[in-house]
Amino acid sequence: MTLPEIRIAYPPWVDSTVEWEGVYPEVEDRMRLAIALSRENVARETGGPFGAAVFERDSGRLVAVGMNLVVPRSNSVLHAEVVACMMAQARLGHFSLGLPELPAHELVSSCDPCAMCLGATLWSGVRRLVCGASGDDAKRLGFDEGPVFPESYRYLEARNVEVVRGVLRHEAAAVLDFYRTSGGPIYNG
Amino acid sequence: MTLPEIRIAYPPWVDSTVEWEGVYPEVEDRMRLAIALSRENVARETGGPFGAAVFERDSGRLVAVGMNLVVPRSNSVLHAEVVACMMAQARLGHFSLGLPELPAHELVSSCDPCAMCLGATLWSGVRRLVCGASGDDAKRLGFDEGPVFPESYRYLEARNVEVVRGVLRHEAAAVLDFYRTSGGPIYNG
Repeated sequence: MTLPEIRIAYPPWVDSTVEWEGVYPEVEDRMRLAIALSRENVARETGGPFGAAVFERDSGRLVAVGMNLVVPRSNSVLHAEVVACMMAQARLGHFSLGLPELPAHELVSSCDPCAMCLGATLWSGVRRLVCGASGDDAKRLGFDEGPVFPESYRYLEARNVEVVRGVLRHEAAAVLDFYRTSGGPIYNG
Repeated sequence: MTLPEIRIAYPPWVDSTVEWEGVYPEVEDRMRLAIALSRENVARETGGPFGAAVFERDSGRLVAVGMNLVVPRSNSVLHAEVVACMMAQARLGHFSLGLPELPAHELVSSCDPCAMCLGATLWSGVRRLVCGASGDDAKRLGFDEGPVFPESYRYLEARNVEVVRGVLRHEAAAVLDFYRTSGGPIYNG
């Protein structure tokens, strides 16, 4: 049998949307990038309406971005948060962004993570999770969040992952509406 | 900036462990393959003590396998179940193994999935999840399962994913002991 192989790369538009050396001092600046990625992903028809980015928490230095690539890559794991974490780890060359010798990292997502991505957040080693639109906003569009409960967030917080939700929620949720009106597919299992 | 890219391939030993055209009629036959993958992954030092495989549920035809590749690939997302689902979707060329025109698929894992993998199981479109060692077996080794609760499993079952746990549990857990005595790293976030 020919063994399958997976290759994951950014869509070609990423360089025109992301200012790699830009400054992102506040969480709102960082969320604006995550939302811009989600919007561009819909506009370019390269995936679902979700964007994410990994930053150094204290300096605001951008490490990696992610966008939902489920449909174009035929891969149900490639949610925006997963792509951002994988790419950040690829850049740093280590499976943990929480190594003691590294600056603290944070994951900024345009929407509350689903169950898979909440688990991926914990394993990534980030010390803060920042979310825009709510899980309910996503559910209204028809996207299931999976088995996420209030104690799921408490579980992360008890392991030193700070959680900040609702940052620029309305701007983030507007992209979900944009996706609906553009007729994008709802692709949950 | 040079954009990162992810490439995921099986370790070279996979063809000597997996009989791709073999027959796996019973869940125990399928679990034996998942356990063999977990054991070989430890013996060859290519990752953590976890193996998984995707089968056509009714025929037992093997579709793809997975093994934990977190440390060698510097990627905290690459748990055995995630690798198996990604590879199965790559083979079938679609992000859902639950398409109506496809036979029903199942994911067999040598251990109860962590929170991330339980979410990934739901999004993969498999109709059955079969587990070997328990989450408590993994925890005894020091591997956190993340925010998994009894209602997490009920959530999957309510969405037509049958869950069967404890299949060849002792054989599966023996690989966790093998990993401990071989001094393998505990790599959670």
